[in-house]
Amino acid sequence: MTSDARRLDIPALLAALTLEEKAALLDGADFWHTEPNERLGIPSVMVSDGPHGLRKQPETGDHLGLFDSVPATCFPPAAGLASSWDTDLLARVGAALGRECRSEGVSVLLGPGINMKRTPLCGRNFEYFSEDPHLTGELGAAWVEGVQSQGVGASLKHFAVNNQETERMTVSAEVDGRTLREIYLAAFETVVTRAQPWTVMSSYNRLNGTYTSEHRELLTDILRGEWGFEGLVVSDWGGVNHRPDSVAAGNDLEMPSSSGAGAKLILDAVAAGELDESAVDLAVTRVLTLVDRAQPALAAEDAGRPFDVDAHHALAREAATASAVLLKNEDGLLPLDPAAGGTVAVIGEFARNPRYQGSGSSQVNPARLDNALDALRGAFEGRREVSFAPGYVVDSEEADSELVAEAVRTAAAADVAVVFLGLPTHYESEGFDRAHMDLPAQQVALLHAVADANPRVVVVLSNGSAVTLAPWQDRAQAVLETWLPGQAGGSAVADLLTGAATPSGKLAETLPVRLEDTPAYTAFPGEGGKVRYGEGLFIGYRWYDARRAEVSYPFGHGLSYTSFAYSGLGVTVRRDGADPQVDVTFIVTNTGERTGTETVQLYVTDPEASVRRPEQELRAFTRVTLEPGRSAPVTLTLGPRAFAFWHESAHRWVVEGGTFGLRVGASSRDIRLETTVELAGDGFTVPLTADASAEHWLAHPAAGAWLREALGTEGFGAMLSDPRNGPMMRAIPLSRLVRFPGFPVDEEQVAAAVRKFASA
Amino acid sequence: MTSDARRLDIPALLAALTLEEKAALLDGADFWHTEPNERLGIPSVMVSDGPHGLRKQPETGDHLGLFDSVPATCFPPAAGLASSWDTDLLARVGAALGRECRSEGVSVLLGPGINMKRTPLCGRNFEYFSEDPHLTGELGAAWVEGVQSQGVGASLKHFAVNNQETERMTVSAEVDGRTLREIYLAAFETVVTRAQPWTVMSSYNRLNGTYTSEHRELLTDILRGEWGFEGLVVSDWGGVNHRPDSVAAGNDLEMPSSSGAGAKLILDAVAAGELDESAVDLAVTRVLTLVDRAQPALAAEDAGRPFDVDAHHALAREAATASAVLLKNEDGLLPLDPAAGGTVAVIGEFARNPRYQGSGSSQVNPARLDNALDALRGAFEGRREVSFAPGYVVDSEEADSELVAEAVRTAAAADVAVVFLGLPTHYESEGFDRAHMDLPAQQVALLHAVADANPRVVVVLSNGSAVTLAPWQDRAQAVLETWLPGQAGGSAVADLLTGAATPSGKLAETLPVRLEDTPAYTAFPGEGGKVRYGEGLFIGYRWYDARRAEVSYPFGHGLSYTSFAYSGLGVTVRRDGADPQVDVTFIVTNTGERTGTETVQLYVTDPEASVRRPEQELRAFTRVTLEPGRSAPVTLTLGPRAFAFWHESAHRWVVEGGTFGLRVGASSRDIRLETTVELAGDGFTVPLTADASAEHWLAHPAAGAWLREALGTEGFGAMLSDPRNGPMMRAIPLSRLVRFPGFPVDEEQVAAAVRKFASA
Repeated sequence: MTSDARRLDIPALLAALTLEEKAALLDGADFWHTEPNERLGIPSVMVSDGPHGLRKQPETGDHLGLFDSVPATCFPPAAGLASSWDTDLLARVGAALGRECRSEGVSVLLGPGINMKRTPLCGRNFEYFSEDPHLTGELGAAWVEGVQSQGVGASLKHFAVNNQETERMTVSAEVDGRTLREIYLAAFETVVTRAQPWTVMSSYNRLNGTYTSEHRELLTDILRGEWGFEGLVVSDWGGVNHRPDSVAAGNDLEMPSSSGAGAKLILDAVAAGELDESAVDLAVTRVLTLVDRAQPALAAEDAGRPFDVDAHHALAREAATASAVLLKNEDGLLPLDPAAGGTVAVIGEFARNPRYQGSGSSQVNPARLDNALDALRGAFEGRREVSFAPGYVVDSEEADSELVAEAVRTAAAADVAVVFLGLPTHYESEGFDRAHMDLPAQQVALLHAVADANPRVVVVLSNGSAVTLAPWQDRAQAVLETWLPGQAGGSAVADLLTGAATPSGKLAETLPVRLEDTPAYTAFPGEGGKVRYGEGLFIGYRWYDARRAEVSYPFGHGLSYTSFAYSGLGVTVRRDGADPQVDVTFIVTNTGERTGTETVQLYVTDPEASVRRPEQELRAFTRVTLEPGRSAPVTLTLGPRAFAFWHESAHRWVVEGGTFGLRVGASSRDIRLETTVELAGDGFTVPLTADASAEHWLAHPAAGAWLREALGTEGFGAMLSDPRNGPMMRAIPLSRLVRFPGFPVDEEQVAAAVRKFASA
Repeated sequence: MTSDARRLDIPALLAALTLEEKAALLDGADFWHTEPNERLGIPSVMVSDGPHGLRKQPETGDHLGLFDSVPATCFPPAAGLASSWDTDLLARVGAALGRECRSEGVSVLLGPGINMKRTPLCGRNFEYFSEDPHLTGELGAAWVEGVQSQGVGASLKHFAVNNQETERMTVSAEVDGRTLREIYLAAFETVVTRAQPWTVMSSYNRLNGTYTSEHRELLTDILRGEWGFEGLVVSDWGGVNHRPDSVAAGNDLEMPSSSGAGAKLILDAVAAGELDESAVDLAVTRVLTLVDRAQPALAAEDAGRPFDVDAHHALAREAATASAVLLKNEDGLLPLDPAAGGTVAVIGEFARNPRYQGSGSSQVNPARLDNALDALRGAFEGRREVSFAPGYVVDSEEADSELVAEAVRTAAAADVAVVFLGLPTHYESEGFDRAHMDLPAQQVALLHAVADANPRVVVVLSNGSAVTLAPWQDRAQAVLETWLPGQAGGSAVADLLTGAATPSGKLAETLPVRLEDTPAYTAFPGEGGKVRYGEGLFIGYRWYDARRAEVSYPFGHGLSYTSFAYSGLGVTVRRDGADPQVDVTFIVTNTGERTGTETVQLYVTDPEASVRRPEQELRAFTRVTLEPGRSAPVTLTLGPRAFAFWHESAHRWVVEGGTFGLRVGASSRDIRLETTVELAGDGFTVPLTADASAEHWLAHPAAGAWLREALGTEGFGAMLSDPRNGPMMRAIPLSRLVRFPGFPVDEEQVAAAVRKFASA
């Protein structure tokens, strides 16, 4: 190919295509390609699984969609990346992924997955960012911008409310409108409006009874109408229910190939008058637009050239380093100074054979693979001895007494024991949910045995979603949560343990004490084809905060080898009214002895809201890297959505006037600076209706005076102001009071009053 | 009138009535009377508020529905009565209420209120029995049988899912089908099928969007079709939305009078063809049946005779005694032996001016009123000194330092201090919900001051729903929860404190540690006209058990002045299959020194259920009264519903075969005996469908063999059994797998397999 992209003349093609050819274009050609049209010269483009690495099946592969794939850089999955809170890093990872796609002629990478972590048990949590929509949206947008900077499209998934694997292809997520907007759609909205992904992938599940792949409100009214999405909607693989309904709803492309079944259904539906041909044309236009968008990169001079394996591995190492969260570090046990001498016992099979990514469609064939044991031996070489004992067989549920004894001996003979624990592959995967949050019992037993032998214990965790820590963490002086750290995780862990790097990750999900404490515990995974989102807005820290519940580690928590002080909080209202803009400024100072990075977090509270709101919500954050003793000013800007809630009956975002709280902290439960800001709000008020309570009417300046006059001071007038029964009577809607015998106002007078006062 | 009741010839009347007359009969005549028809000699009957006493407005009254009423016995409201767990007592109270109605010519008493206590904040909880539907159903049925034994009708209310006062006239309770059946309808079902109340009162609220007064599934399909209700449905007062819709749904009578508005709407709707005249006829038949049913009692010789005020007061005292729950009694501080001499300090205004009932439509004008101070002075007369200090002004939020100082002096000078605390009237009422669960701060402060002066403290509580105890209960050696004890509560408290009576009440509602721990905390009171029942089945102890949460006192808890041992658990399966009957037998022994009554509780667990079930559910209970050292055998019988759950898609109760746990205890968290029982179940299985997962298909004996054969061992066959991806792939519905490229079975073959194997 030349560097001139062969662009498509879409209107001409649309006019030239037969209905049969159009229907064919709306189906995949196989597992990974769109359907070409040779007659009109419409090429096929390739899509491939992601998102933390390219999973491209080779042309000679099994064509079953899962086995085999070409070598690619395995970056940390989203659970890790999210803990970096680093949008710049996410953009650079995205760009690297885009480059690998160009190398392989892949036009769309199927990611990012930005579903909310409703429960730690979701088997696919490792592929998702966070329990918080703001953090997720910021990170997802950066990732998409990175990928698409390379002329490769992203596929924002799984749209929407796909928060469990159990019965994922049929279950209906039952969610109220406000929760949908504020929690489950908010990150999608951010990524779509900010980064315009080329494609959005509809999810498998149903939403309030309707398959999301057939959900017109979701795919057309909200996604395109409200958010201005300009790309194509593709089904999740095998996620089409009734193809004509999905086309009508705005789902343009069925993947993988239905071997003509989808096209036939479309043609039958058009013939029967059940599907408008204009809907087919619209979908075809979007498919052609996608194919057209892909051409410049496919035709570019560097297309097909190998990517820089070393540079990408280094980026994967940087990402893994930024992703690790230092949960605890008593008495400054970490870092393990290489110059200190003595023996470091490395315990645990995961140090040698790491668990570094999850299972399912995202599983990458890594271009390279580090392990922590080798990396630590390298880092300590010539300075500290490194001994090793595997301690356990990863996939066994039974303790191996000889391995345990060896581990105990090894730990006892060392100055410090670094114990690698985590979840075996079969504990968490796409396709099914976890049954519990615990580490394997034999690993916990090993830790107790090792700690009995040597109390100087560091635990390094590998797991894709929160595990329970309470049963064992008092046996570890330090705990480093690495999540699933990708192919360079081993080196990153060595960098962090030895102090070559300073931990900077912060929890993107709460670590609860017990499974029974988790928000969806009593409403997961549902039954009879439905799962009730009973906790509403209150997932993640919103739940633990509302319940004032103890957690093992709160959202946003993460230690460093240095320390930071916060000071000088200031607030400037740059704009007030319906579209407020508020700048929050403060100073961060590195008060420790090492260069380090602090992720500062800004939470907003709305104690005066007319609706029940979460105690606090993350609305802004940034990373600040400082040398010891240095300070930096930080400005975080809040826009209207930082203060707004979704008003379901008004069907819009509302900024209520009043006092908002601003909390600046190092975690959601380590607030360092706090102040308030007064905003005027957008002037929204609940309209006066006949069904409004007498109390509501009486509170209205004009209508209240009218009603008081009409009621008089006897009879009902007296009863409504009676100290004993007044509150009860005033809570009755005026529409009901008028029917009580003797009430001095009738239905027509109320109707007239609504006309007169409602707009006042 | 004579003793011959003037019975109605309903078919003849129906034929003779004009449509206008019929419509008029479906409306009240005023606040409390049905509409008469003088032309055809149809009398009016009177209904009156209850339920814990007759609230009949005199003919000379204000006719506004709330002020003034004739003197009547004020029994303890339902929150208290329920703590007796005594169906015999409830039946006797009901009969006494029925007699008072006969005295006053009242034909229907508007009660009982049997809504579930979803949250302690519901302002009307004092009128409701429990958080448990079994206990509520048993008690409600006994009460109705008692009232109706006197030829007076009950009105079972508020049907249904009316669990809060906030926006009660418009809010929609959003509840899933299984929760509706197992929690919110179950007690109604018990009372209707067991006791056939003359009337059922539809509630104010909406249920899943539809006003219950217009909810045909509720008022007709379930109430009459499934449960066989033979009576009349009346609206709650002012609870009609659109009258023709309510008639069509099965709501027969609008109350109070709509002054003709309802009749006009009915006539207009019939004329417009929007309401079938047969629906009007059906409602009129039910009104006439009610009027007819009322005639014998109204015509009986004893009609209108005064009731026995002394006997009813004695019964109210017995009821209050049985309703009180002894929560704690350290070092056997209670009872206060009259022979012990010394001074008893009585502290607290409530000892002198008791809070003994709640506010709103249930507020009775008591025929007599005891107070604890006088009763204690009487009980101790000549044996112990009784001093008194009011300590606080009930309706003030501010502490009165002089009153506190006086209370401290009084307590310091006494041998023991009995401190009366509780909720002021304006804290809880029909018409609004509580904002928190705390006692007034000044009362708690008083307690601390008194306990500082004298650690021998007994707290006597008066409140209609759970209050927080954790902030202060360590300052009391004993706590007696009297709820709202009715007009004889003062005497009952004296009986219990002095040991003239032994406490026997058990909690009918959990006392949680904190408001934040309560099940509906994050989903109450809703917004935008809806309240999401997000906790589903898990209200009350079902929540605390599932969450393994600490409580202040568990459901079923209550101490005695004696002690009981449980032994000899035996189980007999009398019948197995679809209609099992299981007898559970054991021995209860009074191991203490006083005669006392133990309420033994039987909880059933279903650990093998195919759906998520509560940890344990109360399925039977009884009271056993024993002299010291005596034993009694107990047999509790469990029927099918003790083991069944509601299967929403099958739309029926299902008894699954397997092992059930049986727990016998003195409270839900004081299980004394435990065993299991194996039941065959009713044979229900989930039918095989195309949307069932491959896993489900492969597990089917015949269909599994067919599918394995069709899949072979290569390609998809290999992938479905692959250790890594197999679980994910097998979770996919067969209907989706058939569309994957290369899947060896097609849609038609699956359809054929469904036909072949689904019925097998």
